[in-house]
Amino acid sequence: MIPSRKKVYVEGSRPDIQVPFAEVELSGGEPPVRLYDTSGPGSDPEEGLPQLRQKWIEERGIDEKCNTQLHYAKKGMITPEMEFVAIREGLQPEFVRDEIAAGRAILPNNINHPESEPMIIGKNFLVKINANIGTSAVSDSIADEVEKLTWATQWGGDTVMDLSTGKHIHATREHIIRNSAVPIGTVPLYQALEKVNGDPTKLNWEVYRETIIEQAEQGVDYMTVHAGVLLSYVPLAANRVTGIVSRGGSIMAAWCLAHHEESFLYTHYRELCEIFAKYDIAFSLGDGLRPGSIADANDEAQFAELRTLGELTKIAWEYDVQVMVEGPGHVPMHKIKENVDLQQEICQEAPFYTLGPLTTDVAPAYDHITSAIGAAMIGWFGTAMLCYVTPKEHLGLPNRDDVKEGVIAYKIAAHAADLAKGHPKAQEWDDALSKARFEFRWEDQFNLSLDPQRAREYHDETLPAEPAKTA
Amino acid sequence: MIPSRKKVYVEGSRPDIQVPFAEVELSGGEPPVRLYDTSGPGSDPEEGLPQLRQKWIEERGIDEKCNTQLHYAKKGMITPEMEFVAIREGLQPEFVRDEIAAGRAILPNNINHPESEPMIIGKNFLVKINANIGTSAVSDSIADEVEKLTWATQWGGDTVMDLSTGKHIHATREHIIRNSAVPIGTVPLYQALEKVNGDPTKLNWEVYRETIIEQAEQGVDYMTVHAGVLLSYVPLAANRVTGIVSRGGSIMAAWCLAHHEESFLYTHYRELCEIFAKYDIAFSLGDGLRPGSIADANDEAQFAELRTLGELTKIAWEYDVQVMVEGPGHVPMHKIKENVDLQQEICQEAPFYTLGPLTTDVAPAYDHITSAIGAAMIGWFGTAMLCYVTPKEHLGLPNRDDVKEGVIAYKIAAHAADLAKGHPKAQEWDDALSKARFEFRWEDQFNLSLDPQRAREYHDETLPAEPAKTA
Repeated sequence: MIPSRKKVYVEGSRPDIQVPFAEVELSGGEPPVRLYDTSGPGSDPEEGLPQLRQKWIEERGIDEKCNTQLHYAKKGMITPEMEFVAIREGLQPEFVRDEIAAGRAILPNNINHPESEPMIIGKNFLVKINANIGTSAVSDSIADEVEKLTWATQWGGDTVMDLSTGKHIHATREHIIRNSAVPIGTVPLYQALEKVNGDPTKLNWEVYRETIIEQAEQGVDYMTVHAGVLLSYVPLAANRVTGIVSRGGSIMAAWCLAHHEESFLYTHYRELCEIFAKYDIAFSLGDGLRPGSIADANDEAQFAELRTLGELTKIAWEYDVQVMVEGPGHVPMHKIKENVDLQQEICQEAPFYTLGPLTTDVAPAYDHITSAIGAAMIGWFGTAMLCYVTPKEHLGLPNRDDVKEGVIAYKIAAHAADLAKGHPKAQEWDDALSKARFEFRWEDQFNLSLDPQRAREYHDETLPAEPAKTA
Repeated sequence: MIPSRKKVYVEGSRPDIQVPFAEVELSGGEPPVRLYDTSGPGSDPEEGLPQLRQKWIEERGIDEKCNTQLHYAKKGMITPEMEFVAIREGLQPEFVRDEIAAGRAILPNNINHPESEPMIIGKNFLVKINANIGTSAVSDSIADEVEKLTWATQWGGDTVMDLSTGKHIHATREHIIRNSAVPIGTVPLYQALEKVNGDPTKLNWEVYRETIIEQAEQGVDYMTVHAGVLLSYVPLAANRVTGIVSRGGSIMAAWCLAHHEESFLYTHYRELCEIFAKYDIAFSLGDGLRPGSIADANDEAQFAELRTLGELTKIAWEYDVQVMVEGPGHVPMHKIKENVDLQQEICQEAPFYTLGPLTTDVAPAYDHITSAIGAAMIGWFGTAMLCYVTPKEHLGLPNRDDVKEGVIAYKIAAHAADLAKGHPKAQEWDDALSKARFEFRWEDQFNLSLDPQRAREYHDETLPAEPAKTA
């Protein structure tokens, strides 16, 4: 929790629905401002968080086949999770249920991750952001990754993807999930690849399925599955400036070419749906052929895959599995809107989840900025969640400072999009801060800032005297 | 000049037209890439720069009344300045002349600033950026400001505004202009106010006129004039969340209210035009009623002033004086396009020059990012120059690092806009860098970056070994 903010809870229709907000108290007789709060209740990393949702899950009873929020929503139920989300967003529970039932929003929460505070991803809600963390062969400390999780959610990360690839991949993930109040996403293909010693051609459905179940049991809330990289699409990337840049996409393309067979993720997709339905894991349908440069944006490789992702979305819905669809990447501004419009049309309004996009390739070390521009725009146009990009993108692994810079840049993009979309509660925050600024209530201005500490520091550098802040 | 770039010159139709580019040599048999270069020839700050344009000015002869590039363009002349700009932008000299003649572009260069390398501001050219520097009562060192000028133009500042308000305002400006290869802008009202001991009600046309001539003689290339803040508009800002936030706007509003008279800048505007015509100073028509918050964007106060700026644009053109028009400020994304469309309509396509705009108010200390989002979009929509915002905006005075962060964020915004506008040469840069990235030519990727040193540093933090860069 950011200092100078106070955690408050709003109770729902039953006493165990307690929705957190970060309250900022103001001077000058102004009413306090309540902000959406992703920081979680806090925990001893070795103990893990309390199991907030356990009772709700048990009350419903665990079905052998399907336990998804989509399933309940279609039946007309308003689950405690949906009510929690409604209070969080300032909307009606019926609206939340209907958006989930229509597939326009997802509420990702594996039944084995009862520690999570429910949140929703959909274009008619606040724009969400994801932060990637993860150990690697170069750097792997479990404590560091749990610390990064806490850090990312303190600054506003709505979900966290654990992209670990190091030695202690299972244990790292276990610690992350047990300490996470936000949904956790993974790319199971990365772990499956380690199980076959890094050789993509050795992958097969069995090792992948085993990995999925291992992660499902731990409580992963959504998984990126690159099932849209079909054998026939691989040649479409041949004449690109930057070929295939998605790691998952490259792995599956290598597999398809080596075996000259259709992707096992595609041919076994219905089995995946059965597993996902049981645990209530949401699909994040990966865009393995996303463009890796301005030159490759919106090309046939990208859109061919998108059409397949539309087909896979419909199949997932047959199983009442929640789905979102991943998008690019690198796109110049004038080609951004087409991405959302096409995805929404082809995938029948399933939530869109994009990486940036970066609006130019020329600024490595500043790609949190090149991509915040694209992210704000694509959020306004209807993208439901934005995957952050840190200053280290293309260059190295993000450290603690990089994670913060990435999250802040993306909170800016998401909030700018909320304002442009006209989310009913978004502008209150801006108005409160601007009013404080105009009235020289400096402390209020700092406390309302996305980053109170830095705002205060920058002010004090040139105008350190206390009178200058209260004048 | 950024290390790893080599300054090269392209000669025009006469040997004294030497247009600078920053050339990046590449490995792997790739051709070198030439980038637009604002860094200037370099100088001893005490000596000043060579007088590149002096001969061109003398050849034309100095007219008693009018020496503007607009005047020459209307007569059908292609000046050496226009040819210089054409080579710099990769366009035809006739096109440059015609855009200036139509008032759609300006080539700001006071005849008393012969050190400047000609550049052009107009929607059919590369999007330009301005960096503000300046001493203040809190901090004033001439050497620091000259150093900031050099620093800002090294990173890509196309013009610099000297907003100094300290004791040595005349001497500071003199050093800045004599050492500047880019056009220098000022807000003469600030100095005029100091001449009346900071009391806005004591201002009058005589002290303002004297200040204009003082600065004109020194060689200021464009001046912000808040002549659109009319007496009748002041009450329109009364019910705003953030009232009048422009310093120039506040000063003129205070004057109008105290005297209950029409603004002396408005009533003496034709006299100003006569002075500007003689020196070839360009108007930057100030938006004294620009919105200071999301809540106040696109309101009647703002657009009433804009209509007056349209009227003043036409009057300036009667005198063959070059004009650009300033714009906001703080604007949510969905209201940005209306700003450009209205300004272009009302001001008959005179170049638009905007501050950001910031797309949310909630992130002080990160307003280079909140505003880079708006700047990129407004640049794409047709804004010709973007005034940078540093991380210190609203909080304090920018230091050297802040200036760099602001310039880089705005180079990103401007270049993203150039890509989206489809400027014929913009994408070459992205393609060269992306190709280097895909082929693991790390050194080429670094050298092509907006900030080669930081890109290299970030890479080396996690992957320091040389083989990782040449693999």
